[in-house]
Amino acid sequence: MPLENSAYLHAARGGTTPRRTPVWFMRQAGRSLPEYREARAGTTMLESCRIPELVAEITLQPVRRYDVDAAVFYSDIVVPLEAAGVGVEIVAGTGPVIAEPFRTRADLDRLPELSLDALQHVTDAVALTTAQLAGIGDGVPLIGFAGAPFTLASYLVEGGPSRDLLRTKALMHADPQLWHDLAARLAQIAGTFLRAQVLAGASAVQLFDSWVGALPLADYERLVAPHSSAALAAVSDLGVPRTHFGTGTGELLGAMAAVDGGVDVLGVDFRVPLDVGAARGAAGAGRPVAVQGNLDPALLFAPWDVLRADLHRILAEGERAGGGHVVNLGHGVPPTADPAVLARVVEEVHAWRS
Amino acid sequence: MPLENSAYLHAARGGTTPRRTPVWFMRQAGRSLPEYREARAGTTMLESCRIPELVAEITLQPVRRYDVDAAVFYSDIVVPLEAAGVGVEIVAGTGPVIAEPFRTRADLDRLPELSLDALQHVTDAVALTTAQLAGIGDGVPLIGFAGAPFTLASYLVEGGPSRDLLRTKALMHADPQLWHDLAARLAQIAGTFLRAQVLAGASAVQLFDSWVGALPLADYERLVAPHSSAALAAVSDLGVPRTHFGTGTGELLGAMAAVDGGVDVLGVDFRVPLDVGAARGAAGAGRPVAVQGNLDPALLFAPWDVLRADLHRILAEGERAGGGHVVNLGHGVPPTADPAVLARVVEEVHAWRS
Repeated sequence: MPLENSAYLHAARGGTTPRRTPVWFMRQAGRSLPEYREARAGTTMLESCRIPELVAEITLQPVRRYDVDAAVFYSDIVVPLEAAGVGVEIVAGTGPVIAEPFRTRADLDRLPELSLDALQHVTDAVALTTAQLAGIGDGVPLIGFAGAPFTLASYLVEGGPSRDLLRTKALMHADPQLWHDLAARLAQIAGTFLRAQVLAGASAVQLFDSWVGALPLADYERLVAPHSSAALAAVSDLGVPRTHFGTGTGELLGAMAAVDGGVDVLGVDFRVPLDVGAARGAAGAGRPVAVQGNLDPALLFAPWDVLRADLHRILAEGERAGGGHVVNLGHGVPPTADPAVLARVVEEVHAWRS
Repeated sequence: MPLENSAYLHAARGGTTPRRTPVWFMRQAGRSLPEYREARAGTTMLESCRIPELVAEITLQPVRRYDVDAAVFYSDIVVPLEAAGVGVEIVAGTGPVIAEPFRTRADLDRLPELSLDALQHVTDAVALTTAQLAGIGDGVPLIGFAGAPFTLASYLVEGGPSRDLLRTKALMHADPQLWHDLAARLAQIAGTFLRAQVLAGASAVQLFDSWVGALPLADYERLVAPHSSAALAAVSDLGVPRTHFGTGTGELLGAMAAVDGGVDVLGVDFRVPLDVGAARGAAGAGRPVAVQGNLDPALLFAPWDVLRADLHRILAEGERAGGGHVVNLGHGVPPTADPAVLARVVEEVHAWRS
């Protein structure tokens, strides 16, 4: 059976890891790597996501360099929006910028459902990538991903990144029916994007709700959780472990663990200890969940002894959590991070149990 | 006794309010008010803070317009830094920008201790303001404020606002002694700024640690809390209630309530219900604390029935908390807020108990 020895898949399914605690990094394929900057030269971010050979190359770069236990598909959370026909650009130093922000019900017409047919370049890229990953050691699993409906909506409604998400929240409260219709459409888009990746060979998925920590719990449960459930339900028949991630979500962890009958892995950022996060997740899901996290990316810039001490804290908390642990950052790799430090983190994590 | 009927001071000292639940808004004096934009025309933000008559006028504007239960001194968290000699500008749409960011121990020399003598314009402005506030109804208390050492340091180190605070956290971990020396200096500056305001007539103080929610609890307790304690200790002999505020601080509320032997009022943002915040605060302080909050500023843009329902939720939670409640936003008034909505919020809060 392919990938039967994968430490990542074992931990994501709630097992204690037989060989070593698995580790990967959100945004491990990206600007922090010189080989990425070289590969990307001359193409925009979104162009690069449409070239299967380039996507496979970029996805594999950190696997080769770091010996991480999983690859994460090189893409961007706005890629499925673009595939559905939304005008979007990724502006360096800013992030995604939407040409015509979502304002009224009429804007729903500019956001058609996404079909698997529109994702041929994604399917091709995943197939190429997984074929190459199969040849590395015992094989390396690929994690597919999508932005969650709330975070996708926040970009559409704000027109770009925003600290306060005032327009998004205003829409949720001023016209809940329009909000639900928008979020349901985005759940269809995100779910289809996840499904395409799994059908083409991805072994796991992660739903990124990066900015959902801006919501109070009651709003999350009423206005967001049903749509995140729908997005994850799109792959529930495919037997892959599903990770749910956000930042600043201390108050939301139980509700996030509970979506679609319970996720497999709960992302925990650096504000909450992993064992505490696992307990909150288990209380929400009604059964144990694995945890993923939770190194503060800022510690990548700290002296090694400080970083190492925090890794040991993380490994101990993850073991104490008892329901499976995948080491990761509490958020994505900063573009200014030193790859040598990430390499040392992977070594340290792997050495801990071996 | 002046202000003996102040609903704000009563609640801030932990009493159930005899007449009405008090309400004020962080950043109530500011860009959302047309009379503010008119008064400020032709002066920069920092210039306006140096003109006592203008400071008094701007501080009083929301009191006249809204009938709020407290005035908050018109200033900016970087004003004491500027008074201490730091080159800083407030750039519209960005925030404070530091001419020469703090990088090394040598930079400490550019950050001398602040003396009360350097704050004559602040003292004058407070005296003018409180004289005018005394003539409104039974008198309206003035809340003095300062930025907390961590948030001040974040601006100095990052050079301006930052989402991730990577440099600030890196400094904390790479050179804890330099961090402690910087934070101690900032505590002296913030404490002196608070003391100047109280000695000149302010009836209460609030320490703003707006961005401290970016830290894990262990780092907060070790690297930040002692300095926030020192800042608040500068007014502990003056008998005024002390409020401690931050955002995204769900995991930190106990530690924030505990500084300098226990604060009087704990600011709670919209992510945590007020009664839950009060319980976390009481557990940290070892005795009940009053709570302040926690309307999501985004709800100012929601339909009135939604906003009204949340105000009733807030009032009920605050009453249930049992240790004193001051209604406020979970963060500052957005510049785009409609003053008519804020006026209606005040009316609704005051009507609730009368």
